Amino acid sequence: MGRVNPPVNIQTSTHRGRPGYSRDDVIDAAVREFNQRGYEATSMGHVASVLGISKSALYHHISSKEGILELAVTRAQDALDAVLQEAAESDMSAGEKVRALIRGSIEVLCADQESVTLLLRLRGNSEVEKHALQRRRELTRRVIPLIDAAQVAGEVRSDLDTGVLTRLMFGTVNSVVEWYEPGGRLSPGEIARHAEVLLFGGAAHS
Amino acid sequence: MGRVNPPVNIQTSTHRGRPGYSRDDVIDAAVREFNQRGYEATSMGHVASVLGISKSALYHHISSKEGILELAVTRAQDALDAVLQEAAESDMSAGEKVRALIRGSIEVLCADQESVTLLLRLRGNSEVEKHALQRRRELTRRVIPLIDAAQVAGEVRSDLDTGVLTRLMFGTVNSVVEWYEPGGRLSPGEIARHAEVLLFGGAAHS
Repeated sequence: MGRVNPPVNIQTSTHRGRPGYSRDDVIDAAVREFNQRGYEATSMGHVASVLGISKSALYHHISSKEGILELAVTRAQDALDAVLQEAAESDMSAGEKVRALIRGSIEVLCADQESVTLLLRLRGNSEVEKHALQRRRELTRRVIPLIDAAQVAGEVRSDLDTGVLTRLMFGTVNSVVEWYEPGGRLSPGEIARHAEVLLFGGAAHS
Repeated sequence: MGRVNPPVNIQTSTHRGRPGYSRDDVIDAAVREFNQRGYEATSMGHVASVLGISKSALYHHISSKEGILELAVTRAQDALDAVLQEAAESDMSAGEKVRALIRGSIEVLCADQESVTLLLRLRGNSEVEKHALQRRRELTRRVIPLIDAAQVAGEVRSDLDTGVLTRLMFGTVNSVVEWYEPGGRLSPGEIARHAEVLLFGGAAHS
């Protein structure tokens, strides 16, 4: 089915008159479908069906499936980048910067769980995915100097490989998307504190 | 395309004469495709194509795509269960059992990285997937008493929520599938030691 309406200026309006959905609503619904069904296996028809609108109404909001993927992962990566930048540029100690990055990243992934889940499951099957994976690798590369600096400052132990330590710490952070439930028993801030205490203090200490 | 050969006794023979692939080779290739392309988006035709055999030759090895999924996740879960059972039944202290479980789980996921990746990405879109997810939840439920016992024994700190602590610790373990490279700089045993040191000792101690 083709596009029956001309593309609209999607930057200046968040609410469409027609089906009562904002563009963010459409992206959120699509990303939930991608995560549940698999990105490759989800068609624009599935997304339209979930929203209860026609495919032509869907194309009124968004130009393509890949466009949705790009918007969602960009949104998640921008938020994670902002946490990293704020920590890196602060006047905290090197170790405090790493702690702030861990807490802030967990807050981001709780706030936009579906988009971060999509980001973490990317496989690089298209140019958009390859670009996002490239950006993910750059983020990791920018984290490693923070850990290095914290090791030099004596705030992070130096007897472990920095690359493996970084991957394990942010593996812990990222794993929260797998089980976090909005409105659950612990708030994002409390989960972030648990992760910081575990990763810095260790399970054996109290 | 239908099955052109009668099902063979797949338990007693690991090598087929015809295309030179064992049944495990076929499962391994299929699981790699599932992980790269997405399970729902992968057809038996894709798997046959990757192996360079016909679909009918593929059906000589295996009855269905879902059958491959079931065999792979069962293999991964059996291995993880065995690690848990061995730790739980050993005469180690409660804390040592948790440490052994962490190390052993990392060894399993490095040894069968593709199957564990598939297991961790299941979404419950079919009966086979729902059953595997159920078994995953049971595994987590069996881990929590080990952490509880280690807290009672004073080997794991008691000032953190046991459920969140368990999910964070095994989130760390599971995240290794995302970046482990067979034959890489660190062996599975060394990665397992890094995880144990980080999770029990904490990044701030040395």
